[in-house]
Amino acid sequence: MSQYHPLTEAEAIETARSIQEVFPTGEELVCREIGDGNLNLVFHITQPATGRSLIIKQALPYAKVVGESWPLSLDRARIESEALVKQGELAPGLTPRVYKTDTELALTVMEDLSDHVIMRRGLIDGGVYPLFAEHISEFMARTLFFTSDLGLNQQEKKRLVQSFINPDLCKITEDLIFEDPYFDADTNSIEDPIRDAAEAIWQNEALLLEVAYLREKFLTRAQALLHGDLHTGSIFITPESTKVIDPEFAYFGPIGFDVGAVIANLLLNYASQEHWSGEDASRRDRRVYLLNTIRDIWTQFEEKFRRLWNEHGVDRVSRAAGYQDDYMRRLLQDTIGFAGAKTVRRVYGLAHVADIDTIPDAAARERAQRMALAIGTGLIMRNRQAESIEDVIRIAKQASGD
Amino acid sequence: MSQYHPLTEAEAIETARSIQEVFPTGEELVCREIGDGNLNLVFHITQPATGRSLIIKQALPYAKVVGESWPLSLDRARIESEALVKQGELAPGLTPRVYKTDTELALTVMEDLSDHVIMRRGLIDGGVYPLFAEHISEFMARTLFFTSDLGLNQQEKKRLVQSFINPDLCKITEDLIFEDPYFDADTNSIEDPIRDAAEAIWQNEALLLEVAYLREKFLTRAQALLHGDLHTGSIFITPESTKVIDPEFAYFGPIGFDVGAVIANLLLNYASQEHWSGEDASRRDRRVYLLNTIRDIWTQFEEKFRRLWNEHGVDRVSRAAGYQDDYMRRLLQDTIGFAGAKTVRRVYGLAHVADIDTIPDAAARERAQRMALAIGTGLIMRNRQAESIEDVIRIAKQASGD
Repeated sequence: MSQYHPLTEAEAIETARSIQEVFPTGEELVCREIGDGNLNLVFHITQPATGRSLIIKQALPYAKVVGESWPLSLDRARIESEALVKQGELAPGLTPRVYKTDTELALTVMEDLSDHVIMRRGLIDGGVYPLFAEHISEFMARTLFFTSDLGLNQQEKKRLVQSFINPDLCKITEDLIFEDPYFDADTNSIEDPIRDAAEAIWQNEALLLEVAYLREKFLTRAQALLHGDLHTGSIFITPESTKVIDPEFAYFGPIGFDVGAVIANLLLNYASQEHWSGEDASRRDRRVYLLNTIRDIWTQFEEKFRRLWNEHGVDRVSRAAGYQDDYMRRLLQDTIGFAGAKTVRRVYGLAHVADIDTIPDAAARERAQRMALAIGTGLIMRNRQAESIEDVIRIAKQASGD
Repeated sequence: MSQYHPLTEAEAIETARSIQEVFPTGEELVCREIGDGNLNLVFHITQPATGRSLIIKQALPYAKVVGESWPLSLDRARIESEALVKQGELAPGLTPRVYKTDTELALTVMEDLSDHVIMRRGLIDGGVYPLFAEHISEFMARTLFFTSDLGLNQQEKKRLVQSFINPDLCKITEDLIFEDPYFDADTNSIEDPIRDAAEAIWQNEALLLEVAYLREKFLTRAQALLHGDLHTGSIFITPESTKVIDPEFAYFGPIGFDVGAVIANLLLNYASQEHWSGEDASRRDRRVYLLNTIRDIWTQFEEKFRRLWNEHGVDRVSRAAGYQDDYMRRLLQDTIGFAGAKTVRRVYGLAHVADIDTIPDAAARERAQRMALAIGTGLIMRNRQAESIEDVIRIAKQASGD
């Protein structure tokens, strides 16, 4: 069974049965394929008699997006699996457990998190996650610090860089986040009413220059092992628990790219609150909640990252007076720039977000889209001058009029 | 013969004989081992009857420096060989021809350049190289541009990054250039008369902060495939010809590190002109020549790099208005910062330069050392504010009083 082929359900069950720690007893297993079929097969294996379960995720050798299919390296399954394991070591409890990986078959057998919800869905449904800022700041501070030259022996880091070279998946980011939204690319998916806003972005030379800087950072700045796709669709959540999944975009890049991804997706949800009709108090409450969460994420992330640096910093040079303060200031600026780029592309690039796309009322949806663009471009234009997370709060409030 | 072992002279001759393009006829070959025995064996193979010759360079599995021996990966021979081949493709005529490589034996068979001199020696002996600025700017512009995300498909670049991960050799740079000179490290080799100057550097917090920034760039900024050790000891030269050798430190790093290395070593020679006694006009002539060469190198490098970008740029985003100007300004600033760091470490770090160390008069040598430190620290302090190569010229002139 070791040569690559897409698993049948029978093979998935056979694989699952070999995981003794989940299925120590021989009762019947049931398999359901629950993937979206675009990039991966996802088998959900349950044992009705015991209530036990697990997930098998297997990469497909192609990607299907907008009807097209292009080849995609199976090596991404190795990268995802190794990143999951590494992140699980560095941030215990904040990732699914990995029971087994098979590089040949490009699969990972892991903990079933069906008792959690995908955070994007949870936020759309009005969920409140009081521990999320604490958990995600912990996840980011630990996974990013301990894979950076600040927290990891520099030679070991280089070997990790080598094993996380990820050309195929990085190309998706390079195209869909940093290039296509900034000209009239075929991949864009622009709703007619906001075409003028997209065109204004294509004409904004100062903005295009900032995007060129951000893309350069994505291409060249190997600071730490990123998750690489840390939006609210890559997070399983309950009020008590946070689990970060799907690190197939993992590679060594700029730390602010991960932090910015989380913030961008909260801001997209912030803009989507236009779905409330009239002067609904719920809209304001949700927005206050989201902005407080953003503030808490950055504040706690910064505090934890600095604490790790002070306690576990591996080298002498980075203790130079003033260096840490400057590093954190630049990290905030990167975060804000990447948050902006990740917000813009979700409005009219190839892949939108359900937060906004599912607003049924066309006028409300358009308001949300324009607001998200105002926030995104505001962050991009501000990034290199930003001094505080309050810059983000202010830009969001200005865009919404709150 | 394929399992690794240091070659005997007989084996070196046998290897040489297999290179038909150099030795098509069967006359006797003579072998002489001419390496310094610290890192590599270097066999010079000649055929007295025909006057033909070649070089075999073989890596040793350890480094001997200051009496100590530490293990060093033989993979550096593969890296050196692959870098030589790549640089030879990108900058034809500016590297030695490679006839053969053997990864198992960690050896490269290459063109004999005995008709050239090592440029450091040539400069010490008063050589003038009117084509050097043209050649080295061409070498750097082409090898750096075409291995950067500006001139190479970004996915192909990532695969190159992967094959040029070079932890062992980078560690030498990280320690000896960016760390040890900035505290009272055992590896430093400080002549007593200038100990006060070294101590002043260790106390200079603003300078230590700049060094932390430069080191961060060396560690994280994968801009292009660097030579990595581009000092005047890595250049074979005649008035008509320039050949860049020994790229065993090659890795993907900040472009300014290579450009800065060339400039630093010209500045060290500039400082060494203190060896002339009294008001010797030769001193001034040499300094004018060296500063003109530095100006020409940067000016021609910038012009060529921009031309390559305009003619061969691979992507749309980097054509954003103002981006190229800003990129080149930052590249100059990096160049100046790295030139400073490379100058300082050559005065009292582990590895000095013959330009200064061979000055017999102790007072003149001390003047040269202090001048080099004044130039090096001046460049480091200036780097992020620099706007023009004239900043370098001015700092050098101020330090020498010329």
